[in-house]
Amino acid sequence: MALMQLTMIPVGSSVSVGKYVTNIQRYLEQENATFQLNDMGTLIEGDIKYLLSLLGQIYEIPFKEGALRVVTNITIDDRRDKKIKIGDKVRSVTRKLKKDRIKP
Amino acid sequence: MALMQLTMIPVGSSVSVGKYVTNIQRYLEQENATFQLNDMGTLIEGDIKYLLSLLGQIYEIPFKEGALRVVTNITIDDRRDKKIKIGDKVRSVTRKLKKDRIKP
Amino acid sequence: MALMQLTMIPVGSSVSVGKYVTNIQRYLEQENATFQLNDMGTLIEGDIKYLLSLLGQIYEIPFKEGALRVVTNITIDDRRDKKIKIGDKVRSVTRKLKKDRIKP
Amino acid sequence: MALMQLTMIPVGSSVSVGKYVTNIQRYLEQENATFQLNDMGTLIEGDIKYLLSLLGQIYEIPFKEGALRVVTNITIDDRRDKKIKIGDKVRSVTRKLKKDRIKP
Repeated sequence: MALMQLTMIPVGSSVSVGKYVTNIQRYLEQENATFQLNDMGTLIEGDIKYLLSLLGQIYEIPFKEGALRVVTNITIDDRRDKKIKIGDKVRSVTRKLKKDRIKP
Repeated sequence: MALMQLTMIPVGSSVSVGKYVTNIQRYLEQENATFQLNDMGTLIEGDIKYLLSLLGQIYEIPFKEGALRVVTNITIDDRRDKKIKIGDKVRSVTRKLKKDRIKP
Repeated sequence: MALMQLTMIPVGSSVSVGKYVTNIQRYLEQENATFQLNDMGTLIEGDIKYLLSLLGQIYEIPFKEGALRVVTNITIDDRRDKKIKIGDKVRSVTRKLKKDRIKP
Repeated sequence: MALMQLTMIPVGSSVSVGKYVTNIQRYLEQENATFQLNDMGTLIEGDIKYLLSLLGQIYEIPFKEGALRVVTNITIDDRRDKKIKIGDKVRSVTRKLKKDRIKP
């Protein structure tokens, strides 16, 4: 089970970043993907085959909007020993921080 | 004004990732930094000098926990034409998606 | 035409990084891919469909070597306005630097 | 001892990427830094304090060229158990691949 963070940056053009980011979200909603937008990219959850197949689709969106050059950054955190889901890591750290505060 | 995303990955060791991620959050709280944890890293807001100075401090945390090798990924989105703050991009895209849904 | 840089980092295990990097190179040689190893990852040249299909194959190599968790960083620089090949950018910058030195 | 890979991408502007990449190389030559340009970025060698101090200087170059928004990707591979130098990883993998070919 893996998490993939995707960031696409159109280079040297006046393509609206907001517009194609919105189109990527729209596409992910239609596909019923489990995903979360943050200020640096979009996080998507699933196994690697599913994620790479989604990537192939999403990847073309900024080019369809007219971009001629796009730099794409992808980070995949893939564990084969346990399931990882969006929100797990944040919940685990938040719990540790709370425990810490309660201690006298 | 810039946003920096920071991800630190201890390589080939049994260092607990959760532990040093928690310590990074603790440090940022003490420093009164504006930050947000997501499942891929920590997002911090500020101008570049402030961010690089924080980075110099945070960077040593996993080594202090005993890591011998760490791969660090840093992405900085820096705009000199307007202020960018954590949450701005997400709000803007969410607004566009809502408008879209209301349309008949 | 695009360039893809691929870096795979096994987390929290004693998997030999050198061994699976060697296996990735071996695989790329067999496939007659145009690629170049640098100290941060492997650069591969081709159109996006070819690159994503190669990625799907290479991606499993460290897991086959026994890794339970791998963080993968992929950067793709994709231009639809002109061909880009490995070595182009380096040659272009080197030429500019040389010109500069010759000037009195 | 660490290696840092630096990639700076001007967003949504017509700033010449080649020009500021050349200026970054020029700056590194003047500083007598040990560095290597590849098609995805610039690799620099040194300890972390030195690298972060260089980063603070180089970082402003595209903005001085007129960029209003720049996305910067930095990857740092830092080992505290042994020295790592530019070219080490490539040499080690090349050696393994050669051995492999000689075997009957």
